[in-house]
Amino acid sequence: MINLGHGANVDDMAAKYNKNPNDILDFSANINPYKIEKLEEYILEGIHKSYNYPDIHYTQLRKNIEEYLGCRSEWIIPGNGATEIMYLLMKCIKGPLAVINPTFSEYERSARLNHVEVVPFYLHKHNSFLIDGDEIRSRINEFESLFICNPNNPTGKVQNIKEILDLLQSHSKLLIVDETFIEFVEDEGTFSLLQYIEDYPNLIIIKAATKFFGLPGIRLGYGITSHQELLKQMFIYKEPWTINSFAENLSNYIFKEQEYIQMTKEFFKTERKRVLNELAAIEHFKTYATDTNFVLIELRSITADQLKKRLFEKYNVLIRDASNFKGLDEHFIRIAIKTPMQNDLLISKLNDECLFEI
Amino acid sequence: MINLGHGANVDDMAAKYNKNPNDILDFSANINPYKIEKLEEYILEGIHKSYNYPDIHYTQLRKNIEEYLGCRSEWIIPGNGATEIMYLLMKCIKGPLAVINPTFSEYERSARLNHVEVVPFYLHKHNSFLIDGDEIRSRINEFESLFICNPNNPTGKVQNIKEILDLLQSHSKLLIVDETFIEFVEDEGTFSLLQYIEDYPNLIIIKAATKFFGLPGIRLGYGITSHQELLKQMFIYKEPWTINSFAENLSNYIFKEQEYIQMTKEFFKTERKRVLNELAAIEHFKTYATDTNFVLIELRSITADQLKKRLFEKYNVLIRDASNFKGLDEHFIRIAIKTPMQNDLLISKLNDECLFEI
Repeated sequence: MINLGHGANVDDMAAKYNKNPNDILDFSANINPYKIEKLEEYILEGIHKSYNYPDIHYTQLRKNIEEYLGCRSEWIIPGNGATEIMYLLMKCIKGPLAVINPTFSEYERSARLNHVEVVPFYLHKHNSFLIDGDEIRSRINEFESLFICNPNNPTGKVQNIKEILDLLQSHSKLLIVDETFIEFVEDEGTFSLLQYIEDYPNLIIIKAATKFFGLPGIRLGYGITSHQELLKQMFIYKEPWTINSFAENLSNYIFKEQEYIQMTKEFFKTERKRVLNELAAIEHFKTYATDTNFVLIELRSITADQLKKRLFEKYNVLIRDASNFKGLDEHFIRIAIKTPMQNDLLISKLNDECLFEI
Repeated sequence: MINLGHGANVDDMAAKYNKNPNDILDFSANINPYKIEKLEEYILEGIHKSYNYPDIHYTQLRKNIEEYLGCRSEWIIPGNGATEIMYLLMKCIKGPLAVINPTFSEYERSARLNHVEVVPFYLHKHNSFLIDGDEIRSRINEFESLFICNPNNPTGKVQNIKEILDLLQSHSKLLIVDETFIEFVEDEGTFSLLQYIEDYPNLIIIKAATKFFGLPGIRLGYGITSHQELLKQMFIYKEPWTINSFAENLSNYIFKEQEYIQMTKEFFKTERKRVLNELAAIEHFKTYATDTNFVLIELRSITADQLKKRLFEKYNVLIRDASNFKGLDEHFIRIAIKTPMQNDLLISKLNDECLFEI
């Protein structure tokens, strides 16, 4: 089996350690822990749609996204998760592509598989893993397209990258921004580049229902750009019917769940601070500030692999060993922020000194 | 919007003619008209799976297909419909690729988009659209891979192609067989090449839940081959999580629906003959024999476009204008075989002489 460098699979881990998958508390996947209350009802209403092909043009789906984002549906390309949008993009952009590590491994994989040369940039821990605009400026001639994850996975900080957008526009280069986690950010409107879509055709934003709406299984993502030629190219390469009828149907409902959306935003605003404080108090941890629903932590003594194994064996708790992110080392873990009760449980386990014995 | 040359979309047609989509009787899509009775129950049981990513290795899904087919799960690659398997294949096979027209347009599209040269073969109406093994033999040096749809869409006949498999093996060439419709065929076991998978690594079969299980919306297809190097290549190119959690979950149930499977097979055995007889009695039609759940018809006077429009305007009945299949002309239509009541309704409408006025 190909190892794609993603997090551990709950089922695989459970099988390996002979545990019941239902007993596992998964902090490795960074997904909204709250569910849309009427999800079952919404799904039932749309079951009959699975008896037919999804709309090959996804007209209603794009209208639903248009309404949610407040931008034109002609600018939207829907995908089987954000991943399909990345892979389509890599068939259409000019390389080399600059990728800022550590980040989601599929940017580089999708580029490589489509023969797009990758120019690596690195964030540095001594700089709190912040993007260095000056470095991008000084190396601007090394790439034609730049991929930024904002807020970045696995580092968690959001940044104002409007200056980078301006810089790239003035050099006629493409900026790809993965805003999959931006709805978790306090004051999202300040940081999202969505407001610049119309005026900056050198910008494409990628989003998904995966993280914020807590529905990775439905496979629904989308790209937004006013770059008509790029969109046309992507549609030329797009395989038909990649978004299933359940995702198509749910788009009629989830984006209108105002209460759920507001509740999630409010919850993370406070819970993030609380969890960060609790984690920072653990002496074996160096925690990095986050604006989203996960925390990057550097272990001061033992390795990520050791802590992950111990937590799983002793407490059925699964965390993300982040050492396979390019640019991180074997001491980095990533932890999702879940419900207060789940977070308290994790924190209480992490206060077990035995876990950190050398 | 890109026109991919597929059938009309019910919603698009309804909008164009200002009709309610729910009033349309769709004979254009060739999908099993019967539904799995407990589908809703199965879906409800798996809703919680959408809260997590699907298993990136699809271990259980592949086991379910293994059990259904009676072949090893290491030979199975699951896909977002049969379509994903085609597109993956085109990244991995040696060209040129021979495609036998008229057939499903995605074979050629997937090849073209992946820079695989296509060598067209044609079926001829004077030969009842049957594959000519002698022609393949005589042109064997023109291609490295051959794509056959069996039974073929839109012509409907199944053929015994074991000789072609032997021929291709002896020339070290790859045979790709789309058996998406083979479960509808009487005496499926005689015609399916599944029995040769182990001994013929130059064979890959593509199947799907779309047609026989009547679930195109769930997007579940798969490829089967014992060609380990080809499989490995396909997995290298495979995008992660392309099969959604609903499809993953339903694979636990649908393949075990023995009663549904047997009922469908029995139904089509008799209903196919009955519908064919009724259609053949219409003097404006030349019907072609079929072994599956659709019928290809050549109109003797008016064009497919004319009949399609008239049926839709007057009776809300949608048929497939088959003139955009390469190798067919403007007089061909394709009609799905549905439930007896639906078929009777269609036949009664088709006996309206006004439809065929020149």
